[in-house]
Amino acid sequence: MKKHNFYAGPSIMPQYTNEKVIEAIRDFEGTGLSIMEVSHRSKEFVAVMDSAVAHVKELLEVPAGYSVIFIGGGASLQFAMVPMNMLEKKAAYINTGEWAGKALKEAKIFGEVVEVASSKDRNFNYIPKNYVVPSDADYFHMTTNNTIFGTEWKKDPDIAIPVVADMSSDIFSRPIDVSKYAIIYGGAQKNLAPAGVTFVIIKDSVLGKVTRPIPTMLNYKTHIEKESMFNTPPVLPVFAALKTLEWLKHKGGVGAMHKINLEKAALLYDEIERSKLFKATVPDHEDRSIMNVCFVMADSYTELEKEFAAFAKSKGMIGIEGHRSVGGFRASLYNAMPLESVRALVDCMKEFANKY
Amino acid sequence: MKKHNFYAGPSIMPQYTNEKVIEAIRDFEGTGLSIMEVSHRSKEFVAVMDSAVAHVKELLEVPAGYSVIFIGGGASLQFAMVPMNMLEKKAAYINTGEWAGKALKEAKIFGEVVEVASSKDRNFNYIPKNYVVPSDADYFHMTTNNTIFGTEWKKDPDIAIPVVADMSSDIFSRPIDVSKYAIIYGGAQKNLAPAGVTFVIIKDSVLGKVTRPIPTMLNYKTHIEKESMFNTPPVLPVFAALKTLEWLKHKGGVGAMHKINLEKAALLYDEIERSKLFKATVPDHEDRSIMNVCFVMADSYTELEKEFAAFAKSKGMIGIEGHRSVGGFRASLYNAMPLESVRALVDCMKEFANKY
Repeated sequence: MKKHNFYAGPSIMPQYTNEKVIEAIRDFEGTGLSIMEVSHRSKEFVAVMDSAVAHVKELLEVPAGYSVIFIGGGASLQFAMVPMNMLEKKAAYINTGEWAGKALKEAKIFGEVVEVASSKDRNFNYIPKNYVVPSDADYFHMTTNNTIFGTEWKKDPDIAIPVVADMSSDIFSRPIDVSKYAIIYGGAQKNLAPAGVTFVIIKDSVLGKVTRPIPTMLNYKTHIEKESMFNTPPVLPVFAALKTLEWLKHKGGVGAMHKINLEKAALLYDEIERSKLFKATVPDHEDRSIMNVCFVMADSYTELEKEFAAFAKSKGMIGIEGHRSVGGFRASLYNAMPLESVRALVDCMKEFANKY
Repeated sequence: MKKHNFYAGPSIMPQYTNEKVIEAIRDFEGTGLSIMEVSHRSKEFVAVMDSAVAHVKELLEVPAGYSVIFIGGGASLQFAMVPMNMLEKKAAYINTGEWAGKALKEAKIFGEVVEVASSKDRNFNYIPKNYVVPSDADYFHMTTNNTIFGTEWKKDPDIAIPVVADMSSDIFSRPIDVSKYAIIYGGAQKNLAPAGVTFVIIKDSVLGKVTRPIPTMLNYKTHIEKESMFNTPPVLPVFAALKTLEWLKHKGGVGAMHKINLEKAALLYDEIERSKLFKATVPDHEDRSIMNVCFVMADSYTELEKEFAAFAKSKGMIGIEGHRSVGGFRASLYNAMPLESVRALVDCMKEFANKY
């Protein structure tokens, strides 16, 4: 039976990436060695790293004066690296969910943190709209897509102080104006690569302003200066990232991908709206994530939740259980998710509804 | 032509691991998904993580009271995490090479560091023998195998204070007495897995003694309590680690592997001793690494270095150039390196010698 992978992350990857990684394990670039066995200093892998960086810059139209690095540790390590490198006195954070909250908590170790707004009052089911960012803060931190709660910023922010954005779960899903940000970071395991590599896009001029000593590996400058080769990078995940970026470019880039993503999300949200059985957890349409569609059983049908979960599973739907803090269901529609899988889920919802 | 992979790291892996990773990209444990696409919270991957930890404990006979974790960032991040978690007032380091020196440098950010001995006076070509470890230091840090300089500790240390050991390049190559150490850590990309995962074996009772606040991701306790699942671990590298550990167990474990490693190293060192053309860079036999065999052209034959490099390359030898700080050649003979490849290198050295 065909499986449809709706996992929130690690999550579906392009078949192209899977195939290219297999080829590279059999023989990486004609070296006769596996990609898992090749030195990161070999000219073949240096070319992979350079090309991965060049692809990110091209696909996101990264302006001059920005660096792109690939490191280990995940976005969770960035929660500490950002304030370590950027927080001298005060930082502003907006709390839009679990990961935003974790980032905020971590920053408190390094200085004063102002929570400019929070959507906790409604279990994070909206993006706060009216808030004031203190002009004397060192930076403003936001989480552009809230994987667990299914909310997403649709526009780049226009904020006077440096903006740091965790884009773990929506990077490459739509065009962004990188110049609006000082730092963009994310774990790769949604739209880019298998787990084990983290991307960071940094405006070089925002660094070097804090007075604390920063451990070498936690200093962005180390990785910028050594072009992500200060120590051994996660070789296979970086190779896989390059293959996904090649695939994305072939698909027409982030603009073309955005159109497909909007179509996929509309298909599913429309069925949720249409159906009497289901209800979206995010009421405001403009705040609804196109990456993670969260929904629950409608009020009169809550007793059918387990039954629908089992039915969907029997139809090959994988990973649609909602996070425990939201309940219900979550379908993650990352770039690599084909429209046909979304159609299959919608058909499955319709078929289930017809039974009741 | 058959390639012989003598890279110092990332380096040769068992063919079993390569094959099993390919199988798991095609279909991980019957899920119908690639190992690169599967949630780290899936029961199938949780079983992989649990089994990898259990294999480490079994193969190294890790005593009760120790935890095993897998995290990202590489050994270089451990250079900072060790003092962050362990250094309250003073730490003792022995400087036996480039990586030992980097670890020492990093610790200075966190407190007083005593260099108890250094072999820098002879370009790190020996392991210092007589030195005093201050009894009031919080811990003693050592690098058991010095990949660049080809020296190695052959015995577990007997030191009164907690011992922290970087075993990146000789873990699993021989039996060790884990009880002699407080922390053993290493990047996985030599004897364990592809680059992107780091193992740490920690005596639980040594933690919690420093007063500084530790960022969540840099606190060993976080990863111990969450069993390496606080955030998304490097899924594929951990899976590959498990496969290598299974292979090692099938080969008879670290005791059996040690015998083979001694045989491989003896074969190469004997040829270096026998030949008039070559000279080992480490004079004392007892300090010679069985993992990284460093040698140069003998004094009367230095002009043949480039010629031998080209000749060896033409015979399928890959990655035998020495590190720039030593020069000459380095053949890394990690666990996965078959005896036949060492024989091929020795034959190549003999054939070259016969030409002159």
